[in-house]
Order: sequence, then C-alpha cells, then structure tokens
Amino acid sequence: MKSQLDIPALNLNDDARFMTVALREAAAAAEDGEIPIGAVIVYKAKIIGRAHNQRERLSDPTAHAEMIALTQAAAYLSSWRLCGCTMYVTLEPCAMCAGALVLARIDRLVYGPADPKAGACETLYNIVNDKRLNHQVEVVSGFMAQPCREILQDFFAAKRQKTQKPEDGGGRDGVGNVCL
Amino acid sequence: MKSQLDIPALNLNDDARFMTVALREAAAAAEDGEIPIGAVIVYKAKIIGRAHNQRERLSDPTAHAEMIALTQAAAYLSSWRLCGCTMYVTLEPCAMCAGALVLARIDRLVYGPADPKAGACETLYNIVNDKRLNHQVEVVSGFMAQPCREILQDFFAAKRQKTQKPEDGGGRDGVGNVCL
Repeated sequence: MKSQLDIPALNLNDDARFMTVALREAAAAAEDGEIPIGAVIVYKAKIIGRAHNQRERLSDPTAHAEMIALTQAAAYLSSWRLCGCTMYVTLEPCAMCAGALVLARIDRLVYGPADPKAGACETLYNIVNDKRLNHQVEVVSGFMAQPCREILQDFFAAKRQKTQKPEDGGGRDGVGNVCL
Repeated sequence: MKSQLDIPALNLNDDARFMTVALREAAAAAEDGEIPIGAVIVYKAKIIGRAHNQRERLSDPTAHAEMIALTQAAAYLSSWRLCGCTMYVTLEPCAMCAGALVLARIDRLVYGPADPKAGACETLYNIVNDKRLNHQVEVVSGFMAQPCREILQDFFAAKRQKTQKPEDGGGRDGVGNVCL
C-alpha cells in the first residue's frame, strides 16, 4: 500500500528530521500490510535503531517498532542502558513499549498522536513518568501528529474498503479507527 | 552461582510442575550472573516456550524471561495470538511483560511473589486485567512464592556479599532486596 503522506523535507529541525525517518518506517510497514507504525532511536545525532511494526511478518506479539528499535540500539551501544538516546515513534507507545523505554533508561521520547485504545504514556497510563519506577523519560507528545495519524487512517480506510467490514475494532490490534 | 532451592519433585499438580521448570530457568539465570527470573509457556499440557532473564548476556533491555518465552511460543504456534496458553513466571511481570501478555492474548498467568518495585499485574498497575484494553488474563498470583523469592534473595545476598554494597537498590534492575 502506498502512503498518501506529504513527508516533510529534511531541512527541518532535528526532531522533524528524525520523525520523518520514523514515518518512512511506518510507510514501509503499510507496504507490508502491517499496521503502519515506525520508530527511530537517535544517539549523538546518529540513528542507531530504526524499525517498523512486524507483528504479522514475524508472527510475534512483541515485534512492535519500538521494541525492535530498542534491541537494535542496545546492540549498537553494546549496553542495555540507552542513556543519551531519544526515541521517535509515530504513535503513543503501548504498555509493553512504554515499560521497555523505562527499562532501557532512554532519555527522551518524541511521539505523534495519542493512542486512545492502548496508549501508556498519557492516555491509559503514564508509565514513562511514574515516580514509583526507577527512571523517568522526558516526553514530547503530539509531535507531527497529523502525518502520523494520516498514515494510520489511510491504512485502515484501505483495509476496511477491502474487507467491507466497517464495524471492525481499532487500535494496533484490529482494523479500525486508530486515533481518528 | 548454585541455588539453595529445594525444588519440588515433579509428581505435583500441573501448575507446580510447570512452575518448577520456570524455577529451573531462574536457577540457570543465576548461574550466568543474571537476575534469576524464569518463565515457561504451556499449550495443551506441552511446554512451547521456556526462558530466563538474559538482559546482561544479550545487552538487551527487552530480554526478560517472559519476552523471550513469548517469542518462542509464538514461533512454535506460527501465530502472535497465544490463545489457550498459560505462562508460569517466578516473579510478578513488569509493565513491559504484562503489556506483552495482553498483546499476545495469553489465557492465563501464574506467577510467584509480587514485585513491589515494578510489578504490573497487581502491585503498581494491573495491566493484565484492565477492562479498557482488548484482552484480560486469568491470573493466579503468589503461586510457589517462597521458592521463587528464595532464589532471588540468595542471588542478591551473594551479590551484596561480593560487592560489599549493602545499600544498593533492588528490583530487577539493581542489587538489592527484591520481594523480601
């Protein structure tokens, strides 16, 4: 599936530049028939992890974009501690991914739209800023939310058209109205 | 490090039998210098995933026992949906692992002691039974808690003795008093 995104040019500020890469990852997921979510991890202005959702391809419930990018970044740094790193992701992380960000001691999280069905960074939970846990993450939410939302809406609209089941559920786990 | 566990014999009921295997995984982690947590996934009375914490060995913040076992079980079933499966784990899962259990649609979770520092199935959160999410898990908590707790206590006591830093923090991420 081709994305209808008008992806911003690369001469924007750093956050926009890296979120644009995350959007390209999301577009790659859509092309593979996966729910289009992309993630990028940056350390010292260099991308050390970039991935898209591969749950269906890998038949793996843990294969969210964020998890794959975290494992890549940890391999690059030869450390499970991702201090000094920023994650860019095109949708608010779920509980699994938010928990992983805390475990990884990531410094900063920049994400697109909130996920009303499973978001765990502000919507259903705020795992990345829970003082009871041993690490908190600096968060920028709603960043470039519109293009991130559009790629999801386009994906689910195309899927609904194909399956003729407009009543289907949403979120990352269904065919529906993620973040409409 | 050798565990001081008196592991129950295998002629107990099924839950005890499978938790015993999880305890053996935890003991294997301790021998590798990893925080001793083990997990087993069972489908139709057969073990289809068994793993221990490998965060240090793999330098991967996501390499908790539960996550590795989930990926193994999904590979066995060639599906990210682990309907009909039970997970046995020697400590209350954290937010990452609890979130993954929901994403995997696992039927049942049996765990040992609560984790006061990071537990997300009753202690800090109850992610596995949150009606706002699209799946809930049947939970048995505190199962064979004593041997599960002892293996952690022995590990941290040995580590404290070695490092001479009795004031260190605890949880899965430090050298301290997990679930004392």
